[in-house]
Amino acid sequence: MPKDKIIWDVSHQSYAYKILTDRLNSFHTLRQYKGISGFSRPEESIYDTCISGHASTSISSAIGITLANSILNQEGQAVAVIGDGALTGGLALEALNNIGVFKKNIIIVLNDNEMSISANVGGFSSYLSKSLTGVLATKMRYDFKNAAEKAPFGDAVLKISKKMENVMIGMLSPGAFFENLGIRYIGPIDGHNVKDIEKALSNAKLQKRPVLVHIATKKGKGYVPAEKSPDVFHGVSAFDKETGAAKNKCDALSWTDVFGRKILSMAEKYNNIAAITAAMGDGTGLRSFAEKFPDRFFDVGIAEQYAVTFSAGLAIAGMKPYCAIYSTFLQRAYDQIIHDIAIAELPVTICVDRGGFVGADGSTHHGIYDIAYLKTVPNLNIMLPKDRHELEAMLDLSYELNKPVAIRYARGSVYDNQELIYNKLELGKPEVISDKGKTAVISVGHIFSEVYTAYKKLLDESLDITLINLRFIKPLNTEYLLNILKDKSFVVIIEEGSLIGGAGEMIVSLLNNSGIYIPCRTIGISDEFFEHGTVSDLRKDAGLDWKSLYNTIKDCIHQA
Amino acid sequence: MPKDKIIWDVSHQSYAYKILTDRLNSFHTLRQYKGISGFSRPEESIYDTCISGHASTSISSAIGITLANSILNQEGQAVAVIGDGALTGGLALEALNNIGVFKKNIIIVLNDNEMSISANVGGFSSYLSKSLTGVLATKMRYDFKNAAEKAPFGDAVLKISKKMENVMIGMLSPGAFFENLGIRYIGPIDGHNVKDIEKALSNAKLQKRPVLVHIATKKGKGYVPAEKSPDVFHGVSAFDKETGAAKNKCDALSWTDVFGRKILSMAEKYNNIAAITAAMGDGTGLRSFAEKFPDRFFDVGIAEQYAVTFSAGLAIAGMKPYCAIYSTFLQRAYDQIIHDIAIAELPVTICVDRGGFVGADGSTHHGIYDIAYLKTVPNLNIMLPKDRHELEAMLDLSYELNKPVAIRYARGSVYDNQELIYNKLELGKPEVISDKGKTAVISVGHIFSEVYTAYKKLLDESLDITLINLRFIKPLNTEYLLNILKDKSFVVIIEEGSLIGGAGEMIVSLLNNSGIYIPCRTIGISDEFFEHGTVSDLRKDAGLDWKSLYNTIKDCIHQA
Repeated sequence: MPKDKIIWDVSHQSYAYKILTDRLNSFHTLRQYKGISGFSRPEESIYDTCISGHASTSISSAIGITLANSILNQEGQAVAVIGDGALTGGLALEALNNIGVFKKNIIIVLNDNEMSISANVGGFSSYLSKSLTGVLATKMRYDFKNAAEKAPFGDAVLKISKKMENVMIGMLSPGAFFENLGIRYIGPIDGHNVKDIEKALSNAKLQKRPVLVHIATKKGKGYVPAEKSPDVFHGVSAFDKETGAAKNKCDALSWTDVFGRKILSMAEKYNNIAAITAAMGDGTGLRSFAEKFPDRFFDVGIAEQYAVTFSAGLAIAGMKPYCAIYSTFLQRAYDQIIHDIAIAELPVTICVDRGGFVGADGSTHHGIYDIAYLKTVPNLNIMLPKDRHELEAMLDLSYELNKPVAIRYARGSVYDNQELIYNKLELGKPEVISDKGKTAVISVGHIFSEVYTAYKKLLDESLDITLINLRFIKPLNTEYLLNILKDKSFVVIIEEGSLIGGAGEMIVSLLNNSGIYIPCRTIGISDEFFEHGTVSDLRKDAGLDWKSLYNTIKDCIHQA
Repeated sequence: MPKDKIIWDVSHQSYAYKILTDRLNSFHTLRQYKGISGFSRPEESIYDTCISGHASTSISSAIGITLANSILNQEGQAVAVIGDGALTGGLALEALNNIGVFKKNIIIVLNDNEMSISANVGGFSSYLSKSLTGVLATKMRYDFKNAAEKAPFGDAVLKISKKMENVMIGMLSPGAFFENLGIRYIGPIDGHNVKDIEKALSNAKLQKRPVLVHIATKKGKGYVPAEKSPDVFHGVSAFDKETGAAKNKCDALSWTDVFGRKILSMAEKYNNIAAITAAMGDGTGLRSFAEKFPDRFFDVGIAEQYAVTFSAGLAIAGMKPYCAIYSTFLQRAYDQIIHDIAIAELPVTICVDRGGFVGADGSTHHGIYDIAYLKTVPNLNIMLPKDRHELEAMLDLSYELNKPVAIRYARGSVYDNQELIYNKLELGKPEVISDKGKTAVISVGHIFSEVYTAYKKLLDESLDITLINLRFIKPLNTEYLLNILKDKSFVVIIEEGSLIGGAGEMIVSLLNNSGIYIPCRTIGISDEFFEHGTVSDLRKDAGLDWKSLYNTIKDCIHQA
């Protein structure tokens, strides 16, 4: 176990480090099922200090490690490596506020490529970049020289001012900000000059207090396609080495695409619609919206808490904000959903993208707690579309409803089966696809694509079931639902989310509390962290692929 | 509806405002059952813009309101009034990072009494206070004068330096920080000088971009007892006007006291125990710990996210951190519990104080979602003590366990009934208090005090029940529990927490999935926001007082 700890913040940055630390031979398995992770993982190597899939965590961890070493009289240096995007998350800013209190040598390497995930956002980024481009510093020098020349005894003033100039430039540079927080500032340094970096780090190590080493890097440096399209190469799938073109590019329409198109058309119709993203403008399908309605599009950077409370503010003054955040990152805004939106019943729609398994990002990123943590929030309307048409209809409904709404959909291709008849959406009312068998299967949200395939196979074998698409977690027309279920002999509830706290638990409890005692089975994701892999592999592991579902339902039919 | 909106951040600050805006006549009902709220509440008055019980929300809301006004061509000015404590929460810092992007006149009034709830914490506070006390400014002036005098042609240099001095002082003051984020800085202003404040606000209103008006106030100004003990008067119950002494002071030992004493004694024994609080050192019972072990006590300010990830860092390097946070504020650290503690199974114990109804703080502060949002987190051990001895034993167990733990207890007097026999704690195993009737009652955590009273009343009427104290949500020895329940004819689960997503749902679902079909009733807090009032009043409303429980259980016995 190395006594010095390097902590990568959002460990996309750590690929080269992985190769240098034990993982050269397994590197070809990166982000693949059973292969090495795309992020730091202490389980994978003793050189990985922390789990770091979500941004802005590294400084907090580094402070903790350093103070523990001090209390326990252990040797060791902690180094946090953080990008300029991650530095503006609330967690990182809270850590910056706390670090200077302790006069300990903690090193923060600020890897500044002037590039958060889609663009620099916010005053802090522009403050940092000003220093890099030197505009301000140059202006300072000019003003100073001007003032000095006009003064009597200009030469003497120039002489002393030369010295003061450096002090003043220092104050305008990021140095002033950090120094005032008790952090020694070193930089900016050319991040592609190894000698300069070595010198800066050696210097940093000698300090008796926290140090920030500000390095300027170019994203994709040395590989032309990546230098040209840094955003595309931020987190890549397999690509052609010569051209940089993505391999196996999926052209199928995704849930995200459907959301992006629909919200754009709604914004054309209603001038009070706004779209909010936290550094995931492309990822949440809002690129076209941003281009067409720049005044109503807000990329707030890695700041999910702010995204939600800012949306609440927009709603207070009459807007209808659609705040699109990945399920896993929405965990950061849980309090804001309760406190700033739900209590006052503000008409903010949270578009929960990437619900369920997300694939290659793995355990830190699966969106499997959302149903559980959202369903307890009073006043929140929770909708889960089974397919493309329902997502569109739910977006319309959320606009009419004028209340807090969460709409949860998945990563990847949207389900759009032409043989399904579209039944009009009615708030709270589940959709009955078929009401033929003694076994009722309730499908929750996007997992319907697997459930329906299983259902068709059973039909092929003349095994009839009652198939219900839940559509709504809250409100739920329980009278309607119980009326369908009350004469069934077995109820199966299927969701791609945590079993504990899921929709299944709620329905079983509802039945029982209503005096309807029917055997039930809840199917979902068991109480453990699931690694990375394709969604298809992970569904198989969890028993949520159509084949497993087919077998489980068949088993229940026989028990019914 | 006033077109200008004042947004109070943690609206303890808004009492005078309430009196000025419609609530003079109802002010005597403040924080009382069915009376007016201790916080801003749009439902209560058109002059209250936002719900604001949790800190650091105001700037985000103000930005949202301002941009909505701009998009919708509405008139109106948004003013956020925020304290120096709330300014250092991640949400507020995220907002500061975003505000400068828009060249809109948003006014932030920074009410700086150099006092977050228990003490100033962090580099940012000390930065602000430096400017107030003027130490740095004075030093600057001195250094400048010194340098100038030593220079040739000293007089001339002094003359020009006089002018530059102001520029440089400006850069060292908080002004530089805010100006660099695109925020015009005005201050510091004497917050007790009405004329100065008026002038500053008039000036602020004329700007074409965000403005921060930094005012220095004295907490409790004008009332001697409050000036002398500002922390005691931060959030007060009824007190004697002459002496400032609290009325009806409760001397009974609280859950918090028990935690505070126990963790202190554990820290005496083990040198790797640390205690962490987010601006609630006194509130979480850590005052003695802080005095005795200042090196192992960390008050991180209003920064729950950081508190948890920092604790993870401590644990990585060998400490056993006990991070004490109120249930309602822990909502802000939900992601950090999953991402930074649970995945890596770090031995951090989250001490969830103020679980259940909290009383006078009302809907923003009740701790009723915790069981629901924590129970879905894999690897997390969740313990709920029924009384003083169990809380102590669970703290011991958490230390031995060396894994992620959450221990949830309540506000107010700890339950300590001498007639109860103490049964040794065993991880995951519920405690059977009585196994005599066909009706099984499962009590979850601190609500046991009410359940046990109801149980005794039933016994008086010779109505036997099986009484189980659940003790653990996870892990749960289901084999043991099911074995007790399987031959019962009715199961009642009682918890002071959200019914949706609660322990009750989980147990009903567990029974059913295990093929045990018994009628169940889940009793807890229904799906709505509960207002302020005494815990006793609120329990009556929710049907969780002993009398209601007695009636409900009796009803179930008759159904069984």
